[in-house]
Amino acid sequence: MLQIVENPARNLWQTLAARPALNLWSLMDTVKEIFDDVAANGDKAVIKYTEKYDNVTIPNYQASEEEINGAEALLPEQLKVDMLKASMNILKFHSLQRFETNKVETTDGVTCWQKALPIEKVGLYIPGGRAPLFSTVMMLCIPASVAGCKEIILCTPPNREGKIHPAILFAAKLSNVKKIYKAGGIQAIAAMALGTDTVPRVYKLFGPGNQYVTAAKQYASFNGVAVDMPAGPSEVLVIGDETSNPEYVAADLLAQAEHGPDSQSILVTTSKMLALKVAQAVDRQILHLSRKSIIDQALANSRIVVLKTLQQVIDFSNLYAPEHLIVEINDYELLIPRINNAASVFLGHYTPESAGDYASGANHTLPTNGNARAYSGVNYDSFVRKVTFQEITNMGIKNLGPVITTLADHEELDAHSNSVRIRIKDIY
Amino acid sequence: MLQIVENPARNLWQTLAARPALNLWSLMDTVKEIFDDVAANGDKAVIKYTEKYDNVTIPNYQASEEEINGAEALLPEQLKVDMLKASMNILKFHSLQRFETNKVETTDGVTCWQKALPIEKVGLYIPGGRAPLFSTVMMLCIPASVAGCKEIILCTPPNREGKIHPAILFAAKLSNVKKIYKAGGIQAIAAMALGTDTVPRVYKLFGPGNQYVTAAKQYASFNGVAVDMPAGPSEVLVIGDETSNPEYVAADLLAQAEHGPDSQSILVTTSKMLALKVAQAVDRQILHLSRKSIIDQALANSRIVVLKTLQQVIDFSNLYAPEHLIVEINDYELLIPRINNAASVFLGHYTPESAGDYASGANHTLPTNGNARAYSGVNYDSFVRKVTFQEITNMGIKNLGPVITTLADHEELDAHSNSVRIRIKDIY
Repeated sequence: MLQIVENPARNLWQTLAARPALNLWSLMDTVKEIFDDVAANGDKAVIKYTEKYDNVTIPNYQASEEEINGAEALLPEQLKVDMLKASMNILKFHSLQRFETNKVETTDGVTCWQKALPIEKVGLYIPGGRAPLFSTVMMLCIPASVAGCKEIILCTPPNREGKIHPAILFAAKLSNVKKIYKAGGIQAIAAMALGTDTVPRVYKLFGPGNQYVTAAKQYASFNGVAVDMPAGPSEVLVIGDETSNPEYVAADLLAQAEHGPDSQSILVTTSKMLALKVAQAVDRQILHLSRKSIIDQALANSRIVVLKTLQQVIDFSNLYAPEHLIVEINDYELLIPRINNAASVFLGHYTPESAGDYASGANHTLPTNGNARAYSGVNYDSFVRKVTFQEITNMGIKNLGPVITTLADHEELDAHSNSVRIRIKDIY
Repeated sequence: MLQIVENPARNLWQTLAARPALNLWSLMDTVKEIFDDVAANGDKAVIKYTEKYDNVTIPNYQASEEEINGAEALLPEQLKVDMLKASMNILKFHSLQRFETNKVETTDGVTCWQKALPIEKVGLYIPGGRAPLFSTVMMLCIPASVAGCKEIILCTPPNREGKIHPAILFAAKLSNVKKIYKAGGIQAIAAMALGTDTVPRVYKLFGPGNQYVTAAKQYASFNGVAVDMPAGPSEVLVIGDETSNPEYVAADLLAQAEHGPDSQSILVTTSKMLALKVAQAVDRQILHLSRKSIIDQALANSRIVVLKTLQQVIDFSNLYAPEHLIVEINDYELLIPRINNAASVFLGHYTPESAGDYASGANHTLPTNGNARAYSGVNYDSFVRKVTFQEITNMGIKNLGPVITTLADHEELDAHSNSVRIRIKDIY
């Protein structure tokens, strides 16, 4: 049964909000070795590591046009229709995020503005696993394509037959992404970060992955490649009170737990009764779920925390800084202004995390492990840079020039002052 | 005299666009040692390293209220007035960047939106040096304060007398930033990343610094602290043609070069005549500049590239991806849509980089070393997270539920489907 902690003292909260520890630093020697090998030997190295880790030899590891175009025929009709519906929602929400330029004249004759420019080359990583994570393909390809990225590269590990699941190929094709490579793990990240004869070098890397992929992305960030965010095991924090439906809450905790043995599901509530009912409902519902053994392991890292007031509940949630926050209470609107740290928030009794995982339109690539304190989830912004433009007229530099020279002179940068004075003296 | 390269073949461009190499990886052992020491010994370690590297012992290294409030009286009136004017422009431009929420109903009953939430705790690093970099204080404190960050921490190395320059204290006070610490280098970054009894732990680190500070920020990013961007030596690329004023262009190249011996100034032009005149003007203007020896070293890394067409010029610029791009030609408007990679763009003959360095309102904390390909400069966005909210009604989940369950079932996540089905069955 889920552990229930009642009214813990404030000084215990930090411990209750702890995640299973990750130590990526210890993986860096392995990462560096594979990066060095890919830098020196390119595709040969990538193919070698695919043999070693994915147990398959693929001399030409780019997915062919036939494979990509043939994927559609291999999928059931209902799946394709529903992938399209989900894609439309993701497209709608991310299109709304497009940036519009505003100009401002800060001083007479001095105009500044920002312009969003797409990152030209981006690399998307889709992890392997038992089932194809085509939803993550949609969550990365659609915003990249809304942003207008010119070159979108996708890497995902092949199965034992050297193939990529057709649902992944179809999801990529929906966004017109066609440069798809059968490579996974550190070697895929290295190929995209460094470039090989087959894989173009990219400027920013996206997507989830295991600890090796995460460490490889961090290493890449040392070598001039940007990354979306540090990845980690998935997590949910549910806020409940006496108005919550214990069956819904239990289902949400279980949905999170099935992601992996290191997932974490936390319920924080003012209601002891809810805590007990949810714990019972979890035990009941789990019997019907196919990933029971994974869920059991995840629930061992999970807990229910009972606190006295909703203010304490939201304080705990802000301390935890959850990837997913579900506020399953009648009065959820009252809590919205008090949410400081969370990556994606689900409001009310009918907004399960699954909706955002797949189809509501929101992105599911989100910061975990408390990184919601400083990082946004993947969104339109992740695929653009806001470039600053400024345009100064001759009268503008006459107006602003004296301010610039005073400041530059006090920073003892007289070549800076000179670049202003040399212009002002020409203006009458 | 500045090196002039005429009509280089395309395959040489990459070499001409190269920066002096940086190898941060080799510094990581030193960084890790100091982080471990600060983690174990807190303030004691910070004080020890300040003794070692800054040659001063400061047992209580937080700037006192008296020091902060007393700074104003120590500064000349004109400097304070002009700092205020520059601050107002920076405030105007960064306030304009504030994010407004838009809601979208992606499916009937399914509403998604983003909300910008300030990062609660941020750490700003201001490097030391001969002259006080108060302009960087303004460039970091003002957007942090526009974003609404609750706790803004500033670290800067003390001088030999254990003091911080009053212009730095005054600039911070203009933004009501009061938690100021006399600590620099790796130990300052470690203190902010880990927290000590004196320095609060922050969630994101900002600001320029030498290679040790840069390596320390990268190391911090491994340990759950976000960073603004990888830093590096400053650089400018000027685009010129036969309409450019060679004296202005020379002054801009020199202004960039005085930042440091590893700075880089590049002129790319269609006009051989301009190239020659600029090289001469550089030699002439440099005689009157106080940082001549630094400039001489920087100019050794610098060059003029003559190309045949403006399209080639902009292609070269996009390949270089400059931190600062100055387009000093009559027809600069024609080039705007073709600029893909640059961090901050200065348009026309009267828009020197110095304007953006100090007072136009644009930020001067910008990605260098080609990182403009993937990173924005510091702006309002840097201090917030865009948190996703979604709100689904009972009819909304009835509409969208079947899409979610199809997708979840195909990813073999039946606890996800269960969390939707358990709700739908209650809705009639």
